[in-house]
Amino acid sequence: MQNVQFYQEQFVTYLEVFSKDREPKNLYNPINYILNLGGKRLRPVLTLMTADVFDGDIKKALNAALSIEVFHNFSLVHDDIMDDAPLRRGQETVHEKWDINTGILSGDAMLIMAYQLFENYDAKIFQALAKLFSETALKVCEGQQYDVDFETRSDVTIPEYLKMIEYKTAVLVGAAMQMGAIVSGASVKDQNNIYEFGNNLGIAFQLQDDFLDAFGDPETFGKQVGGDIIENKKTYLYLKALEFSNEEDKATLRHVFSSNPEDIANKIITAKQMFESSGSADETKKAIQYYTNKAFSVLESLNISDEKKDLLKEFGLSLMNRTV
Amino acid sequence: MQNVQFYQEQFVTYLEVFSKDREPKNLYNPINYILNLGGKRLRPVLTLMTADVFDGDIKKALNAALSIEVFHNFSLVHDDIMDDAPLRRGQETVHEKWDINTGILSGDAMLIMAYQLFENYDAKIFQALAKLFSETALKVCEGQQYDVDFETRSDVTIPEYLKMIEYKTAVLVGAAMQMGAIVSGASVKDQNNIYEFGNNLGIAFQLQDDFLDAFGDPETFGKQVGGDIIENKKTYLYLKALEFSNEEDKATLRHVFSSNPEDIANKIITAKQMFESSGSADETKKAIQYYTNKAFSVLESLNISDEKKDLLKEFGLSLMNRTV
Repeated sequence: MQNVQFYQEQFVTYLEVFSKDREPKNLYNPINYILNLGGKRLRPVLTLMTADVFDGDIKKALNAALSIEVFHNFSLVHDDIMDDAPLRRGQETVHEKWDINTGILSGDAMLIMAYQLFENYDAKIFQALAKLFSETALKVCEGQQYDVDFETRSDVTIPEYLKMIEYKTAVLVGAAMQMGAIVSGASVKDQNNIYEFGNNLGIAFQLQDDFLDAFGDPETFGKQVGGDIIENKKTYLYLKALEFSNEEDKATLRHVFSSNPEDIANKIITAKQMFESSGSADETKKAIQYYTNKAFSVLESLNISDEKKDLLKEFGLSLMNRTV
Repeated sequence: MQNVQFYQEQFVTYLEVFSKDREPKNLYNPINYILNLGGKRLRPVLTLMTADVFDGDIKKALNAALSIEVFHNFSLVHDDIMDDAPLRRGQETVHEKWDINTGILSGDAMLIMAYQLFENYDAKIFQALAKLFSETALKVCEGQQYDVDFETRSDVTIPEYLKMIEYKTAVLVGAAMQMGAIVSGASVKDQNNIYEFGNNLGIAFQLQDDFLDAFGDPETFGKQVGGDIIENKKTYLYLKALEFSNEEDKATLRHVFSSNPEDIANKIITAKQMFESSGSADETKKAIQYYTNKAFSVLESLNISDEKKDLLKEFGLSLMNRTV
């Protein structure tokens, strides 16, 4: 086993080889641009780390890791169009730097290229990877659609919300790890368990993102604190606060989350107070802990050494403490 | 061997089974909508017909045929966004009926679903189909990008134009047929030859589309005659006319193809006269014949009965005479 930085370096070196000049430039330059914007490369690192955990050759896992990263960036390019986002990792988004049509078409090409990366494996591994990839990718699309649908719905339930974040974010974390297990020839049982580890950790991570968006430290949280409140996003904090409130507080909360006042600071303070007084903030912390524990308990049943289990647990904890 | 109508019916029946209700509706309803707008189902028919030609079970070819049709419709949904097209087969396009974001996301899901349809085959066939699919799909994206690039270029060459229409249109016809050959267990040589047959027929078909757009009978040509001229499209007719013209005529032609006059009828007449007087119209007819003959000559080397070769040739001719 190696440290995270080692896997990152292996991956970035491989990405450089992949990012060669191809024609037509207007199709492939945006692809190289988004792939080289940086980031922590969390998903491909998980693929390489998992391959290592199951005693596989991490060099053999590089194409699967790259496929996951290409897919993730495909989804960023298309989501940024849908969200009309001007910036991604502090740089112009693809559709801002080029145009919407370029974003659509380059994204399409990336989705195809993600599948092509599996061609480096023999037929059985190829099929297993592509099947997992398709199932996961379709869930990511469904999660994105649920997210869009929820914007205009006032009756979103907690199970619906959890399904949305699982599909939109967590399944790809699970799939990234399962792919590492597949290329290393792990048993189907271990494959499924490591998927569950990643999936549950992904849900915990996303719930924590909801929490930190309101209660995080502006110095260390990557995004604008209060961003979800400003945008009236129906996060876990909001949905739980609604559930825990009496009719009067429900009405107040609904009012706060349908307004776009000039005094943003006051809106944020009001919302945070209601998240705390309703018990939603504490409940969200409990949910984060629940999914983190669920992930860790799956680790126990893996057919790997205790030392490796500890390393995966350590990585999970550092992820939840946002130190990686 | 059966007639075209038989394959169409088999395909449409199978499509009905595929078009089941799935959640979220806002993702899957647009997919069912575009897939059920009708059309001649030319590409999936070719897959089934080719499976039959190579003595395969056409039922086994249905998933490959459907994959090709789902991909084709994915490309229509995304292209219609890029072209800002209001209508498709006389009905509202997906982004008109819903919105652009729905068009992007539903299209993405279709591309993934096209790959999923290969999961019904065993690992080796799966890999062969998915590999051909990815290569073809990426060429379709590249062809679309070249088409966009050519709009703002004044130095497009004939070889570049031919490559664009091959990638954008013809390769999918070739791949549709090769997939039929793959699922029927045809030899690699036969697979490649039937691909070349479809690819060359596809180029001939697209060149004929260019020709008919200017010189077709308004009664029988599906689209508005003169549409390419109105939109200043640099088709084969235009590029050859430029090549064959002296400097004065070149300047006139370039002027005509940079204008958007109110008197459309006059613009069309002028352009058509120049296509004819320059010799471009005749040259285009020759090119159509050249690619049709090229397709037919490949047929000779196929390891199938003469009767089947004649049937494929007959189908090719009926396609070029636009009777199917």
